[in-house]
Amino acid sequence: MRTIKVGIVGLGRLGKIHAQNLAQNVPNCQLYAACSLNEEELIYAKTELGVEKGYANYAEMIADSELDAVAIASPSGYHCQQINAALEKGLHVYSEKPIGLDLEEIQATMDVINRHSKQIFMLGFMRRYDDSYRYAKELVEAGELGELTVVRCYGIDPSSGMESFVKFAGASNSGGLFADMSIHDIDLVRWFTKAEVAKVWAIGKNAAYPELDQVNELETGAAMLQLTDKTMGLLVAGRNCAHGYHVETELIGTKGMLRIANFPEKNLVTVLNSNGVVRPCSQDFPERFAGAFITEMKEFIECILTEKQPEVTSYDGLQATKVALACKESFEKNQLIELK
Amino acid sequence: MRTIKVGIVGLGRLGKIHAQNLAQNVPNCQLYAACSLNEEELIYAKTELGVEKGYANYAEMIADSELDAVAIASPSGYHCQQINAALEKGLHVYSEKPIGLDLEEIQATMDVINRHSKQIFMLGFMRRYDDSYRYAKELVEAGELGELTVVRCYGIDPSSGMESFVKFAGASNSGGLFADMSIHDIDLVRWFTKAEVAKVWAIGKNAAYPELDQVNELETGAAMLQLTDKTMGLLVAGRNCAHGYHVETELIGTKGMLRIANFPEKNLVTVLNSNGVVRPCSQDFPERFAGAFITEMKEFIECILTEKQPEVTSYDGLQATKVALACKESFEKNQLIELK
Amino acid sequence: MRTIKVGIVGLGRLGKIHAQNLAQNVPNCQLYAACSLNEEELIYAKTELGVEKGYANYAEMIADSELDAVAIASPSGYHCQQINAALEKGLHVYSEKPIGLDLEEIQATMDVINRHSKQIFMLGFMRRYDDSYRYAKELVEAGELGELTVVRCYGIDPSSGMESFVKFAGASNSGGLFADMSIHDIDLVRWFTKAEVAKVWAIGKNAAYPELDQVNELETGAAMLQLTDKTMGLLVAGRNCAHGYHVETELIGTKGMLRIANFPEKNLVTVLNSNGVVRPCSQDFPERFAGAFITEMKEFIECILTEKQPEVTSYDGLQATKVALACKESFEKNQLIELK
Amino acid sequence: MRTIKVGIVGLGRLGKIHAQNLAQNVPNCQLYAACSLNEEELIYAKTELGVEKGYANYAEMIADSELDAVAIASPSGYHCQQINAALEKGLHVYSEKPIGLDLEEIQATMDVINRHSKQIFMLGFMRRYDDSYRYAKELVEAGELGELTVVRCYGIDPSSGMESFVKFAGASNSGGLFADMSIHDIDLVRWFTKAEVAKVWAIGKNAAYPELDQVNELETGAAMLQLTDKTMGLLVAGRNCAHGYHVETELIGTKGMLRIANFPEKNLVTVLNSNGVVRPCSQDFPERFAGAFITEMKEFIECILTEKQPEVTSYDGLQATKVALACKESFEKNQLIELK
Repeated sequence: MRTIKVGIVGLGRLGKIHAQNLAQNVPNCQLYAACSLNEEELIYAKTELGVEKGYANYAEMIADSELDAVAIASPSGYHCQQINAALEKGLHVYSEKPIGLDLEEIQATMDVINRHSKQIFMLGFMRRYDDSYRYAKELVEAGELGELTVVRCYGIDPSSGMESFVKFAGASNSGGLFADMSIHDIDLVRWFTKAEVAKVWAIGKNAAYPELDQVNELETGAAMLQLTDKTMGLLVAGRNCAHGYHVETELIGTKGMLRIANFPEKNLVTVLNSNGVVRPCSQDFPERFAGAFITEMKEFIECILTEKQPEVTSYDGLQATKVALACKESFEKNQLIELK
Repeated sequence: MRTIKVGIVGLGRLGKIHAQNLAQNVPNCQLYAACSLNEEELIYAKTELGVEKGYANYAEMIADSELDAVAIASPSGYHCQQINAALEKGLHVYSEKPIGLDLEEIQATMDVINRHSKQIFMLGFMRRYDDSYRYAKELVEAGELGELTVVRCYGIDPSSGMESFVKFAGASNSGGLFADMSIHDIDLVRWFTKAEVAKVWAIGKNAAYPELDQVNELETGAAMLQLTDKTMGLLVAGRNCAHGYHVETELIGTKGMLRIANFPEKNLVTVLNSNGVVRPCSQDFPERFAGAFITEMKEFIECILTEKQPEVTSYDGLQATKVALACKESFEKNQLIELK
Repeated sequence: MRTIKVGIVGLGRLGKIHAQNLAQNVPNCQLYAACSLNEEELIYAKTELGVEKGYANYAEMIADSELDAVAIASPSGYHCQQINAALEKGLHVYSEKPIGLDLEEIQATMDVINRHSKQIFMLGFMRRYDDSYRYAKELVEAGELGELTVVRCYGIDPSSGMESFVKFAGASNSGGLFADMSIHDIDLVRWFTKAEVAKVWAIGKNAAYPELDQVNELETGAAMLQLTDKTMGLLVAGRNCAHGYHVETELIGTKGMLRIANFPEKNLVTVLNSNGVVRPCSQDFPERFAGAFITEMKEFIECILTEKQPEVTSYDGLQATKVALACKESFEKNQLIELK
Repeated sequence: MRTIKVGIVGLGRLGKIHAQNLAQNVPNCQLYAACSLNEEELIYAKTELGVEKGYANYAEMIADSELDAVAIASPSGYHCQQINAALEKGLHVYSEKPIGLDLEEIQATMDVINRHSKQIFMLGFMRRYDDSYRYAKELVEAGELGELTVVRCYGIDPSSGMESFVKFAGASNSGGLFADMSIHDIDLVRWFTKAEVAKVWAIGKNAAYPELDQVNELETGAAMLQLTDKTMGLLVAGRNCAHGYHVETELIGTKGMLRIANFPEKNLVTVLNSNGVVRPCSQDFPERFAGAFITEMKEFIECILTEKQPEVTSYDGLQATKVALACKESFEKNQLIELK
């Protein structure tokens, strides 16, 4: 089997996870190049991960004729143009979510993707590659739950990050709570139900940090989605979870219910002490989804080697972004928003 | 200590529970009389529960000068007039929820209640007397969760009752899924948050029994509530729960989260067999709330003996009914409904 | 139905629980008399529980011709003689465990019991009346677990009582850890397996309070039991449980396993906070077995009214004590002990 | 960083797991050679795992001058001689447990290991590398549980393998239930307590398959261990677990308790259906310890690269085997056995 040579762009928190996996945990793959404006990150990539080529310029990296594929983990605002450029160079592309921030730009990138249909394009909705989510999906497909009626998704970041978020909330733009936190959940709703969102209402409350009202940000929000087939979606998104990183998904069907990570159990340990029966929790997404990040990269390389497209398409990226933007609009207007 | 003599009206499923508790499990209380149109029920009350007087006519029962109090467990349509009549006779009154079906009629009954402020009036929101709910309420009051931001309530009846419901759905009038199932949940939202509901959107889906569409009934529904202080309420109501009687309440606050009956565990037994790790579930409300039904009746008698009003007031009944009716309207119009 | 008049002897911690239940929570029963050397306890019984007659002398109480039955909750050393005396007076008898401390004395009392076979005698192995244990027993009897091979029982008291235990360990005599703590567990092993214990080895360790070595007491011990049919019993007993009152029973069979109170969950509340996912625990036996204490007393009165003997017999008391004493001997000699 | 070239001997169920990990999931490692008498297994290793050299003869494989290390996953009876031979050739050695079947032979191999102290020798007690066990170990080392008093270990194989075991029980020799199943548990007892086993009593029962009595095998057994510092060990071993692969470890200390895999939860999914609340279970050791097998191999390669010995020593192997053999003897004689 041949070895796929990958170049990564972006070596931030998430970029490092992908880089490490591509370098060490994915068979038939070599992390050949890395692109970053940060010199230290390039040194890390070379010395720790054995990367051969370091680039400060993305255009130069994708011009390297040794390269087979790129993994994009740069800030969201660059995704579309970097996807476009890599595809035009004949490279396979993995891109972190979201595919883009703006619906028109995403649409234009989808055109590029569609024009290069022999090249692999994969979007980083990694939860679909998590063992527990895959197990749940199999049960749903096997009809164990009957027809789905309600999907409930929680995505709440640990409160450990709250103070820093509040500090920079005015300066940086998170895209809003629903785009920032719920986009994975929206993808899961679509994935499990195979239906589209028709109508949303989103609300929110700043209780611990009322100053977030001033900068139009939210610490906790909720949205209710009505799908085209009347299935109900309930989303809770937040940034202030005391016990860790709470990502939970519930499926209610006519024959049964199912919860993925009803509680974000860190491992199989239960401690019994003066606090009671205690189950420690996952503290962040690198911990909770460590396995999913590896599995999705294995899938990316496997897709390249076997010349089949992954199940996550650019259309999934477009639709999730559409719904996230509708939630944002609904919250801002405190109105029901219909999706076209 | 003197013994309070109680007469009960209604000896159906719930009436029998109250009758048994008043006769056997509540100190300082005698179930003295019972009123029912069903001869067999009166015989049961006399032989099994030691009731002295059986009545086919409510007016006659409340005219009995031995009586101190009545417990009303008749069909909802009779509640208001039976409350009024008993109060006018000088009796203390316990009434099952809802206080009434119509807001004007409830308002009129509240006037009667207020005119007899020395007599005890108690409404059967028995969940407030369940050990787990009381424990949760104490934690909330002690500030353990910080300020509440989201309250999620599930109330789903076991699917064992589904076929009979569908059969009679056209003939009888349940009042709609939200009035029928969510009224306890609405009371809990108000109880925990001490805020009122400002705006609701309610949706639903008939999947297992699409024929319910024809009779304007729902097997599963969801509602999102925006409270006056921006706290978010999420309700799921249903009639088709495969694993039993699923009543669950979640409180999300700025300092922590809490779930009451995350799963409706029947007892402390866990079975491990070829199905996996299995925790059996409560199958219906008499099982789940057996203790709460006793505790609320103890409270009723205690209130009479100590001349203090219980914490559940007729206003709570009015407000819960208002919100339930708003959910019904929202579902029927598929619109946001604002409460005045 | 007639009302059974009961006199209680002993109004300590456990006696008060029985007194309250007999007075308030058991139908067809009146707590008519109480016997205690403590004046305050008798005043409590009269004013709070409506007891008519207070006695400082047990012989006088059982001579009261109004009495139908006695409930014995005095120190263990008095049980045998009080049982004997009450039976000779023609009274029905409920006695707390153990039936006695000495095998010969127990044997003599069994003779008295057998000579009064028309009178009810019931021994307070109340766990057999706990909802969860009864549910488990039904599953076992229905063959859900196949044939039992291992029974594991934990009985560990909360560490809140540890300091006071250590303080008085030299002065008072607990009877040893296994007699004091494991006797209920030994009864459960016999109840579930319907087999007798043939051989035991018991060991122990004082880690937090090594000074207990001096007074021949244990903070934590373990025993392995080989039953007549080769079924295996594993006991852990202790006095130093940080999370509360840990009574757990596990049944392993050829078709499945089952745990009763795998964790001593206090109620249905789960708290999620910076400690993780927390399930609060029962803190003592009055809390854990509140329901069982009521159910066993209902059974006692029901047995009197229907003239049938309860399932717990004096022979169960004798056998449990035999095994507990064998564990004590095994620990002291650090040898295998065979039971005859 | 240089790449370690490993040759594996044995490509059975466990050998394939190691081969796959060495080939694909361990950085700085190449699965260079494989040795098996089974032609098909060698073809698999070459085509699927990219192994360069296939050998039918172990002596030939270890003579290959390209090789840095061997991984031994052959039948237990070959371990000692294969360890010896590889060490003599200057190779680093990973060996599956047990280090050997016979105490004298193990002792001789330990001498060889000690004579080659610059070469890495690692024994496959992989549970020490499982995330949950490591997390527990850290808590214990940090003093969270205080001083340990009881360690309880369950190791029960799924009943799916029972029929085949019974069929071949007479012909093959499992080494007995305790050596076969409890050896990992015995290592865990020593690892957590840092104490040695002083005295054991082991018992067992054949209930589903009484014919095992004839061939001196057990479907379920239990052993109680007294450690040198009085700490108590409780082992349950079995081959007939209906719900899957039940490996559970409990630590009781003076300040708290802890369970690793209280239930063998397969993933984070909870299903609610007519069976109740269901948590699916791990079905076998490859599933339960998938991560541990990878982590231990990473550790093996890391130890080679950094020239430090792993924490699991040959002495651990010797001691665990000693205790397992004492359990066997105790069961056969139904006596307490003291270890020297």
